[in-house]
Amino acid sequence: MGTNSSRLETLTDGIFAIAMTLLVLDLKIEGGFSHVKFINTVRQLWPQFFAFVVSFMVLAVYWIGHHNQYFWIKHSDRIFIWINVFFLMTISFLPFSTSLIASYPHEIYSVVIYGTNVSLAGIILYIHWKYAVGKGNLVEGELDRTLSKSIENRILLGIIFYMIAMGLSIFSTILSIIMFAILPFFYMPFSRIDKFLKEQHQEHI
Amino acid sequence: MGTNSSRLETLTDGIFAIAMTLLVLDLKIEGGFSHVKFINTVRQLWPQFFAFVVSFMVLAVYWIGHHNQYFWIKHSDRIFIWINVFFLMTISFLPFSTSLIASYPHEIYSVVIYGTNVSLAGIILYIHWKYAVGKGNLVEGELDRTLSKSIENRILLGIIFYMIAMGLSIFSTILSIIMFAILPFFYMPFSRIDKFLKEQHQEHI
Amino acid sequence: MGTNSSRLETLTDGIFAIAMTLLVLDLKIEGGFSHVKFINTVRQLWPQFFAFVVSFMVLAVYWIGHHNQYFWIKHSDRIFIWINVFFLMTISFLPFSTSLIASYPHEIYSVVIYGTNVSLAGIILYIHWKYAVGKGNLVEGELDRTLSKSIENRILLGIIFYMIAMGLSIFSTILSIIMFAILPFFYMPFSRIDKFLKEQHQEHI
Amino acid sequence: MGTNSSRLETLTDGIFAIAMTLLVLDLKIEGGFSHVKFINTVRQLWPQFFAFVVSFMVLAVYWIGHHNQYFWIKHSDRIFIWINVFFLMTISFLPFSTSLIASYPHEIYSVVIYGTNVSLAGIILYIHWKYAVGKGNLVEGELDRTLSKSIENRILLGIIFYMIAMGLSIFSTILSIIMFAILPFFYMPFSRIDKFLKEQHQEHI
Repeated sequence: MGTNSSRLETLTDGIFAIAMTLLVLDLKIEGGFSHVKFINTVRQLWPQFFAFVVSFMVLAVYWIGHHNQYFWIKHSDRIFIWINVFFLMTISFLPFSTSLIASYPHEIYSVVIYGTNVSLAGIILYIHWKYAVGKGNLVEGELDRTLSKSIENRILLGIIFYMIAMGLSIFSTILSIIMFAILPFFYMPFSRIDKFLKEQHQEHI
Repeated sequence: MGTNSSRLETLTDGIFAIAMTLLVLDLKIEGGFSHVKFINTVRQLWPQFFAFVVSFMVLAVYWIGHHNQYFWIKHSDRIFIWINVFFLMTISFLPFSTSLIASYPHEIYSVVIYGTNVSLAGIILYIHWKYAVGKGNLVEGELDRTLSKSIENRILLGIIFYMIAMGLSIFSTILSIIMFAILPFFYMPFSRIDKFLKEQHQEHI
Repeated sequence: MGTNSSRLETLTDGIFAIAMTLLVLDLKIEGGFSHVKFINTVRQLWPQFFAFVVSFMVLAVYWIGHHNQYFWIKHSDRIFIWINVFFLMTISFLPFSTSLIASYPHEIYSVVIYGTNVSLAGIILYIHWKYAVGKGNLVEGELDRTLSKSIENRILLGIIFYMIAMGLSIFSTILSIIMFAILPFFYMPFSRIDKFLKEQHQEHI
Repeated sequence: MGTNSSRLETLTDGIFAIAMTLLVLDLKIEGGFSHVKFINTVRQLWPQFFAFVVSFMVLAVYWIGHHNQYFWIKHSDRIFIWINVFFLMTISFLPFSTSLIASYPHEIYSVVIYGTNVSLAGIILYIHWKYAVGKGNLVEGELDRTLSKSIENRILLGIIFYMIAMGLSIFSTILSIIMFAILPFFYMPFSRIDKFLKEQHQEHI
């Protein structure tokens, strides 16, 4: 069964907190501008602001997803810690991807890097859950198969959505970005999907 | 009732700690200056220093406000977590607003962005409390209505004050900034308002 | 008696961790240098490296001092939280003071700002302890007067030392910096002062 | 026996989380580039990306090593805290070493600084363990000599490996870097060495 999972959660919370706060470093304005230049520079920051809000929410979705899994996961082992390390790697990489997509929204490169980053986080979170309930056996208490499947689907949904968004960048990178921006809303409590998943099962999905 | 609120508090503490410490990054001085230029550059940093102190105290007021609510709040649910996410978004945005107002104290834009940022934090903290004691039912132990109202008023007071300060920027942005700087003192233990609120009720407001 | 002090400790640990890690940001080297220029630039970084090590140890001394006080302090109240806020303000300011003294070691301004910063941290930590054992009554368990006095003296010693170091900057700023660098060693377990204080009393000073 | 070790772990987790996340700050791209220049700049970032991944994994190995020791270590004293301070100093220094080696992979200076940094972290972690199980007596529960030796060997192995890698920089700095990159894999659960060490003893090495 391995060790207790609490310190793993502390490290995770720390990395999420920092990644979330570092996002703001991309919003920057130099001193010494004239009135007109200042106004223009602030106005031109809106892609950075938009990217800040979207990535903050993406990180929130992943934090909540990770957090909720620990409602059942109570133990950890070496393999599980390394799965977490790779998950956290994708999380701490997001400030860079965000900065890229905010400065170069029309470049396919930006969309592909951002999309790969967030998809990868999802894929590792999926493996994280599969390992914990499966081979790792790190779960405590009763957890029925349908609930476990429902959590899986919830993560898979996001990954598929991100992949489609990425693919659409061939036609329009802006379309991809809009889809990246919409996704977090699906995971909010008022969304249909969230309600649908909750109706079937309990609170902690 | 949902899950335990402890990990939400860890994330919150992390984001506050980082936002508070990032404020100092705005205080910067390049190397290689001559003696005279060095002295002048340091002296010209006082708006940045002033902004650092004020925003640190604003963050402290909000951290204390958030922290004290958890004297009663012991649980959390999905909606509550998202309220927290939006609250933390305003918190991690503050280093940018601070940087803006420190570099451009005479611009209405700066005051409006800073004012909106801190007001929004207050408004979400207000919703945070209303939800926890109301619909969310996340509170444990006995909590009488007058005490709950008193906490609400405490937050509302700050929001109204910030809004007035913002409005006054039409006449003078410096006046607004002075009001931003004064507000945290109202929330300190020796202030009249603090004493008045405490006389009526218990310690943990 | 107020609330439990544990979340205050989490915020403190967070701010110390960030301040300690931000110190390294001052060590920076641009890309694209030739071999010779690279070697020279790295070599010229030694004041930054020295400042990093010294400030890291200064922060460690204060973290340990703060940490050890919580061996007895188990509660917190509003006044105490605000004392902590001002203490943490001095801590998160240190990366700036460090950067200043590393880039401008020959300027009295740098030494005075650094010295004021670290002395102030000491003074607030002193008030922190006096309030906790005195008026605040936040301590649990038996704590004899001599031990309490010993902790006070330990902090006062550092403050006085820093003040003298600052004063000596009139003659030589380098002398001040050497004294700043020496101080943390006095607080290490193998130092005479540490042993002397420990002989008189118990472990947790 | 000294105090409880939990707050030391919080500080450690915080510093690791920040150091891990700061690594990404080296990945940076300026705005306003043309399409062609943007593509080229992104492509030229691969050494930075590679360094980010390697250092993230190095930090993970050390975090896991530190974390696992606390499966037995339950107390702390002044000397032990200072050992931790020096350990954390090497950890928070790593973002600089990483930045150096990423920008100047062909310079022996970079390899020596990086190698010294990671070796030193290993050496202090070794001392950390030796002190905890030896003179410090900070361990709780039954811990047999063979297991303790096995943990020692595990750390020593890494140090020796890093030293050899550093030495090889006389012939080729790229060879050193490849060895730095390979090492973390030895500490992953699927590696032979990991399995061998685990066969001999229990889970928590």
